[in-house]
Amino acid sequence: MPEFTEAPTQPRQRHDPNDNTIYIGKKSVMNYVIAVVTQFNNGASSVKAKARGRTISALVDVTQIVKNRFIPTLKTEDINLSTEELKSEDGRMTKVSSMEVTMTK
Amino acid sequence: MPEFTEAPTQPRQRHDPNDNTIYIGKKSVMNYVIAVVTQFNNGASSVKAKARGRTISALVDVTQIVKNRFIPTLKTEDINLSTEELKSEDGRMTKVSSMEVTMTK
Repeated sequence: MPEFTEAPTQPRQRHDPNDNTIYIGKKSVMNYVIAVVTQFNNGASSVKAKARGRTISALVDVTQIVKNRFIPTLKTEDINLSTEELKSEDGRMTKVSSMEVTMTK
Repeated sequence: MPEFTEAPTQPRQRHDPNDNTIYIGKKSVMNYVIAVVTQFNNGASSVKAKARGRTISALVDVTQIVKNRFIPTLKTEDINLSTEELKSEDGRMTKVSSMEVTMTK
């Protein structure tokens, strides 16, 4: 599947226009905080965010900053931990942990 | 509270003998994997693990390695994300994300 062909620390950008999941990558955490808050401000009742590997810690930071600074009522629900298989640059398959969180106001 | 007086990346060791929570620190991930598997082998029906800051990614790795290599029926439940306030070395309070996971067979 094309989703899984790049490096674990660089989750791909979404291509499905109906998928509004925010993928946490290597940008500064505030970029993702703003993306989450913007989705809520645009009327979303829930916002999904996903991270792989090292960026999982940043995903948790995003949820906490959104809650502490912007949306005190934020709840983090449906937290799913899983393993994804990715093809690394040398063509080998490697496993990487992933985490998906659904945030609701 | 004494729990919160050290650096975010070095969660303290447990002092309460009745608290069998595994605190994820800077050791290699396999150390914590073995600690979790050992608790299950000793009869625990559930094992709790906790991490702060950057070690949160390692905590997710621990759950996935335990599941993929040792206990295929493992479930990760009661995943709680929160913010803790810690006093840094220069005496200032800093916030750090934390995650707690309960694993059951």
